[in-house]
Amino acid sequence: MAKNLTTRSEDYSKWYNELVIQADLAEMSGVRGCMVIKPYGYAIWERMQAELDRMFKETGHQNAYFPLFIPKSYFSKEASHVDGFAKECAVVTHYRLRNAEDGSGIEVDPTAKLEEELIVRPTSETIIWDTYRKWVQSYRDLPLLINQWANVVRWEMRTRLFLRTAEFLWQEGHTAHATKAEAIVEAEQMMNVYADFVENYMAVPVVKGVKTESERFAGALETYCIEALMQDGKALQAGTSHFLGQNFAKAFDVKFTDKEGKQDYVWATSWGVSTRLMGALIMTHSDDNGLVLPPNLAPDQVVIVPIYRNDEQLEAVSEVAHQIMKELRSQGVRVKFDNRDTHKPGWKFNEYELKGVPVRIAIGPKDVENGTVEVARRDTLSKELMKKEDAVATIVGLMDEIQVNLYQKASNHRAEHTTVVETYDQFKQVLEEKGGFISAHWDGTTATEDLIKKETKATIRCIPLDDDNAAGKCMVTGKPSTRKVLFAKAY
Amino acid sequence: MAKNLTTRSEDYSKWYNELVIQADLAEMSGVRGCMVIKPYGYAIWERMQAELDRMFKETGHQNAYFPLFIPKSYFSKEASHVDGFAKECAVVTHYRLRNAEDGSGIEVDPTAKLEEELIVRPTSETIIWDTYRKWVQSYRDLPLLINQWANVVRWEMRTRLFLRTAEFLWQEGHTAHATKAEAIVEAEQMMNVYADFVENYMAVPVVKGVKTESERFAGALETYCIEALMQDGKALQAGTSHFLGQNFAKAFDVKFTDKEGKQDYVWATSWGVSTRLMGALIMTHSDDNGLVLPPNLAPDQVVIVPIYRNDEQLEAVSEVAHQIMKELRSQGVRVKFDNRDTHKPGWKFNEYELKGVPVRIAIGPKDVENGTVEVARRDTLSKELMKKEDAVATIVGLMDEIQVNLYQKASNHRAEHTTVVETYDQFKQVLEEKGGFISAHWDGTTATEDLIKKETKATIRCIPLDDDNAAGKCMVTGKPSTRKVLFAKAY
Repeated sequence: MAKNLTTRSEDYSKWYNELVIQADLAEMSGVRGCMVIKPYGYAIWERMQAELDRMFKETGHQNAYFPLFIPKSYFSKEASHVDGFAKECAVVTHYRLRNAEDGSGIEVDPTAKLEEELIVRPTSETIIWDTYRKWVQSYRDLPLLINQWANVVRWEMRTRLFLRTAEFLWQEGHTAHATKAEAIVEAEQMMNVYADFVENYMAVPVVKGVKTESERFAGALETYCIEALMQDGKALQAGTSHFLGQNFAKAFDVKFTDKEGKQDYVWATSWGVSTRLMGALIMTHSDDNGLVLPPNLAPDQVVIVPIYRNDEQLEAVSEVAHQIMKELRSQGVRVKFDNRDTHKPGWKFNEYELKGVPVRIAIGPKDVENGTVEVARRDTLSKELMKKEDAVATIVGLMDEIQVNLYQKASNHRAEHTTVVETYDQFKQVLEEKGGFISAHWDGTTATEDLIKKETKATIRCIPLDDDNAAGKCMVTGKPSTRKVLFAKAY
Repeated sequence: MAKNLTTRSEDYSKWYNELVIQADLAEMSGVRGCMVIKPYGYAIWERMQAELDRMFKETGHQNAYFPLFIPKSYFSKEASHVDGFAKECAVVTHYRLRNAEDGSGIEVDPTAKLEEELIVRPTSETIIWDTYRKWVQSYRDLPLLINQWANVVRWEMRTRLFLRTAEFLWQEGHTAHATKAEAIVEAEQMMNVYADFVENYMAVPVVKGVKTESERFAGALETYCIEALMQDGKALQAGTSHFLGQNFAKAFDVKFTDKEGKQDYVWATSWGVSTRLMGALIMTHSDDNGLVLPPNLAPDQVVIVPIYRNDEQLEAVSEVAHQIMKELRSQGVRVKFDNRDTHKPGWKFNEYELKGVPVRIAIGPKDVENGTVEVARRDTLSKELMKKEDAVATIVGLMDEIQVNLYQKASNHRAEHTTVVETYDQFKQVLEEKGGFISAHWDGTTATEDLIKKETKATIRCIPLDDDNAAGKCMVTGKPSTRKVLFAKAY
């Protein structure tokens, strides 16, 4: 721990990179673009996984596992998918190494060349739909509601920890349905599950919407998304859920016989969130002192730091600490007592501030004498001395209070950074001076969308679902617009 | 479900393959040697993961995640490791595909060749120790007790579902310690954790031991293992835990400063179990009717099948079923009510027998009238009609009873198939006619071990730890032997 963080106002991007390293969340590995997720970062990801997995199962999904490798030819089967996904990826061409004859080490054995190259999955639609063909014959086999937790690889040139890495961890749901309507309901349901998770566990408010045609997933007829706003005014896509129509069923010949004996292609969805959520979590709540974690996802919700000069004092302090710890645990609070003698209290205070532990309790000899403890909140950085009898109830209450406060703070920030504009000049000015979400009328054409992107680097994050649907005129072309859409620069 | 299993006595290997497919556990994919783990198989694996993960955390370990790819040069750094692991593996040589000029599809872009090839991890010692160098400076940073759940790839030529696949899922623990003694204690502890899991959750008895030098993990000074015996008399290595000495620390220059300010290399262990355990689970307990699952790992411990001819009967039966289900759930039993109207009761009976659900309850209109239910055990295939008031207590008791019975049956089988021999002729005869574990004296040389392997295909599974250590003479060479070792043909 070597806290000396660049501040957000100095350099937001640098602040983020330093924070991820210093809070022991992740680091770049010796392999270009691939990260190591460190134990503390992984513990947060595990809590995310646990909640999401529970939500997936509660909505009827089962987990399964499909191969890491996808034969090259599979990608060519779905025409729009191949352009979106089969380009920047890791290609396996050989299956053996051998000792170099000159003794210089090992080398690829040229005789062990694969007949068909294998792609390390960038996403699994193709291999999964190739499998579903064998699983689906009749309406009795439907729906298939399957999810996979996996690693995927996309050969990104510019990488950033959690936000964009060559390898990342994610879940990908892939469902098959007898009717179009059922598949659309599924895709919408999963967008709502994601929104529920991100808002209630990550304490990050999101806008639900659909993507424009040019921003859709490769092979999708509709892409539902949830968009979050970071502290620097840039948007982050936190999750997507795709209605894939019959595209993959047709590409992989997946048909079923309905109750009347008629054959039809199956309807599909896919949906995913990834370790990118870690980036959203970090960037939404953290401050110049380090990480700030919502209690619902914090591996340790409370840490107790003892202050003492000798064994006798440590013993007295520990007695109080253990009592509080026991009571907190019995109420389901995750609490840690850091009585390591290798580090001083000041170092520990700093460490847990940097690591975003929601509540810190400090207990010293004076406290033992007076029957008090000091309780500090990470979100507000406020401290309060209280009677030790009141500590447990207060802290249990703080778990909800901090969770709500973080969400509220992020909501306020988003509200302050969401601007409705009428003209393109206004748009550019707001984008330049204030950033954030900009709500504006757009004529619905890809040409205008591309022009705006080219001139301003802002993209249409989504067509919001809760919009008032008021008609107007496109801020750029003046052509009719059926409703406003949400623009932003994005991660 | 199309039950028509080859029997074990007809063809054990064919029986296994058919069973894995028919019980919906896994299947081969379109990618050579890679399997798809189907939802039912994956649900069992998830239960295994959950218990193991809990045990790892209870013994102080944390999870983390390291890259899928390992630069080729890393393997050359630990001399014995490279021969063991860097040969049959998937090699990534390129990072981009492009559209073929002739419009025939996509092809590897020859301009996107990696400067150094990447190996898809067959195991992660090298990339992890390359990382640990950055994490360890002082004794304060030790021990590192880290585990990873991941996929790994070894390019196997002959593959079998779960037992040997090109890609498989596993966990790999990698720990770093300040002293040799502490590392050895760790390696032994993890062998014991594995034995505890395999015996008490999988209901598979194991022999704990160490490997001979030639059977050790590439780079290990000692390999601890647990060995199980399958119904066909072949052994299966269920888990290994390696004491790696300072080999990887030296190869990757991982040093620490001790309390006295002296520098030394760090001591290492690694340990892993994989989806291979699924193979052991299946082969130990299952019978000619299909899978048999121990209650501790069964996704559904109890299934209720309603028998009815009309809606009125279904309603009456369902009322009883829901009551029993509710009471069982309140006692922590995982129970499923299969009231699908798309399949007949006979089909369902067959299905759940094939899938190894420990207890089946059947309730028909007659039962409603008489206040009875029929309770069937999968392990013994016995059925009992009982008062519905007695059902819940009986079934809760059956959970333990079946778990114990399966372990006992497997223990008896192992006892019957463990033979002590004095001469090499006896050895060959027992191996040929009876199979199983054979306990015999061996002179401790690799030459003799190799000879036996060459002549009989039997290998030394382990030098058992609970051996009586009685000295004797090698059955082959007559040279002195300090203790008996355990031979078998193995998976």
